[in-house]
Amino acid sequence: MSAQDTSSSTLCPVTVLVLGVLGEGLVDPDRAVVRADDSGVDRGDGCFEGCRIQTDAAGRSSVDKLPAHLARMRRSAATLDIPFDEAAWRSLIDTALDACRTPGEYGLKLVLTRGPADGIPTGLLTVRPLAESVWQQRRDGLRVITLDRGFTGSAFAEAPWLLGGVKTLSYAVNMAAIREAERRGADDVIFVSTDGVVLEAPTASVVWATDRTLRTTPVGPTGILPGTTQQLLFDRAAEAGWTTETGTARVDDLHAADTVWLISSVRGPVDVVELDGKGRSRDLPVLAEIARFAGFPPAAQ
Amino acid sequence: MSAQDTSSSTLCPVTVLVLGVLGEGLVDPDRAVVRADDSGVDRGDGCFEGCRIQTDAAGRSSVDKLPAHLARMRRSAATLDIPFDEAAWRSLIDTALDACRTPGEYGLKLVLTRGPADGIPTGLLTVRPLAESVWQQRRDGLRVITLDRGFTGSAFAEAPWLLGGVKTLSYAVNMAAIREAERRGADDVIFVSTDGVVLEAPTASVVWATDRTLRTTPVGPTGILPGTTQQLLFDRAAEAGWTTETGTARVDDLHAADTVWLISSVRGPVDVVELDGKGRSRDLPVLAEIARFAGFPPAAQ
Repeated sequence: MSAQDTSSSTLCPVTVLVLGVLGEGLVDPDRAVVRADDSGVDRGDGCFEGCRIQTDAAGRSSVDKLPAHLARMRRSAATLDIPFDEAAWRSLIDTALDACRTPGEYGLKLVLTRGPADGIPTGLLTVRPLAESVWQQRRDGLRVITLDRGFTGSAFAEAPWLLGGVKTLSYAVNMAAIREAERRGADDVIFVSTDGVVLEAPTASVVWATDRTLRTTPVGPTGILPGTTQQLLFDRAAEAGWTTETGTARVDDLHAADTVWLISSVRGPVDVVELDGKGRSRDLPVLAEIARFAGFPPAAQ
Repeated sequence: MSAQDTSSSTLCPVTVLVLGVLGEGLVDPDRAVVRADDSGVDRGDGCFEGCRIQTDAAGRSSVDKLPAHLARMRRSAATLDIPFDEAAWRSLIDTALDACRTPGEYGLKLVLTRGPADGIPTGLLTVRPLAESVWQQRRDGLRVITLDRGFTGSAFAEAPWLLGGVKTLSYAVNMAAIREAERRGADDVIFVSTDGVVLEAPTASVVWATDRTLRTTPVGPTGILPGTTQQLLFDRAAEAGWTTETGTARVDDLHAADTVWLISSVRGPVDVVELDGKGRSRDLPVLAEIARFAGFPPAAQ
């Protein structure tokens, strides 16, 4: 990024380093780009992806597992009946990557809304630095509480209007759950169904390991998102001889597991060091192995 | 409104007649006013109110039951931990009303988001003409299907992070449900809990009548919104000798009722003329009486 992209003032800190608008290209990151009548604003009506950019020492930038993100966004948009122009998105992403030249990691967000009254969808791309909390959580792990998500563990079977598996912009409950965790002195949440099934975290998949078996919750009837980093991790772990399974679990199963992770694209796999107030031991070699499978550096040292 | 406010082009129809930004006043309705990193856009993280403006023959505009809307918005914002400056909102609304001079009805939307990275909440006000479908539905009534909302009827008891009763911006499921209704040849939806309790419509309360008793679903454990127009209707109906009750019902109870309405602030009380494919008779004098209580002209003639 150029020097001006990282300028900031105390009145209006620029945390968006690169801002792209579909059909328009890169624009001033400080510019307001969304209309008040955009249904992304007043209805949370759209979908998004959160991805990780890595910029190497030569200033070359790339997006981790971009095809998987674009495939999921295409599925989200299709379920929402919003057109998704993948070629236009790829072009906008390429332009944004060209503007990312300072070595390091960044968060890339792709947002697609149904748009304003003219019926033309809005596409937005932002590149932002990682929050300080990401580095801290990768190093120290997460204190997590479990919270009831209100749904049964099979509520989404044959109910496509509930948008199970769709990464919508309607994340108010996800954000409220994280605030509830913070009120209780924790960092994050694992949602559980009303009938006791472990679901997912507000912005992450849940994975747990016992011996050399990795497990996660099945998508589909549970309504949870298919995790792109969870999938990558399972593929690479299987290649390395781990057993990988999907299956429903209860909170007691998490307590009994050797290790529990929240896994997301930007933060990577972060292990749970406290679950509902109960401390958990950390197996640093296993954490390092899992981080490597997912494409992240070793966690706590 | 001035002539320029109602100008339009086929490329970008101006449906926002008046646009206000909290802390700034009225601005060009065509201007983009929201940043890409506003959590209203990428998280549906905020709350809103939809109100009805009536402009009389002398060009004087007023908002129906404004205190009830502001009170609900204050409660929504408090649950979301977003500051709510009621005096600033009242001032912005007054300014917008001064700009509404063409006699008729309009929709007023108030949107409050947690804001962008600078942490300053975003407040938006829009005035729009009523959609053609509103007039048609008031006249002809609604064909409604019931859809499972995925929650149990008491999921929201002691689970404040689920944001029960909060009019959040996260309406993606509500919008998807209406699209599902349209796919099935209907106009609207009544959500039912997984255990069969009648909840609410995606953008309206549900009220049903048998003889001279009006009933609606209780707020609280059901998570439904407290309806400002439903409350006004119940108050006025009670004054006129109707019995008003809150209590849980099942879909069979709706089929057995004399009349079922979806009730919202802009559309008013609209009766259900078909429920899950089963036609319902219309009692025009009762419809007219209920419409009058709620402050709307008689429905079908």
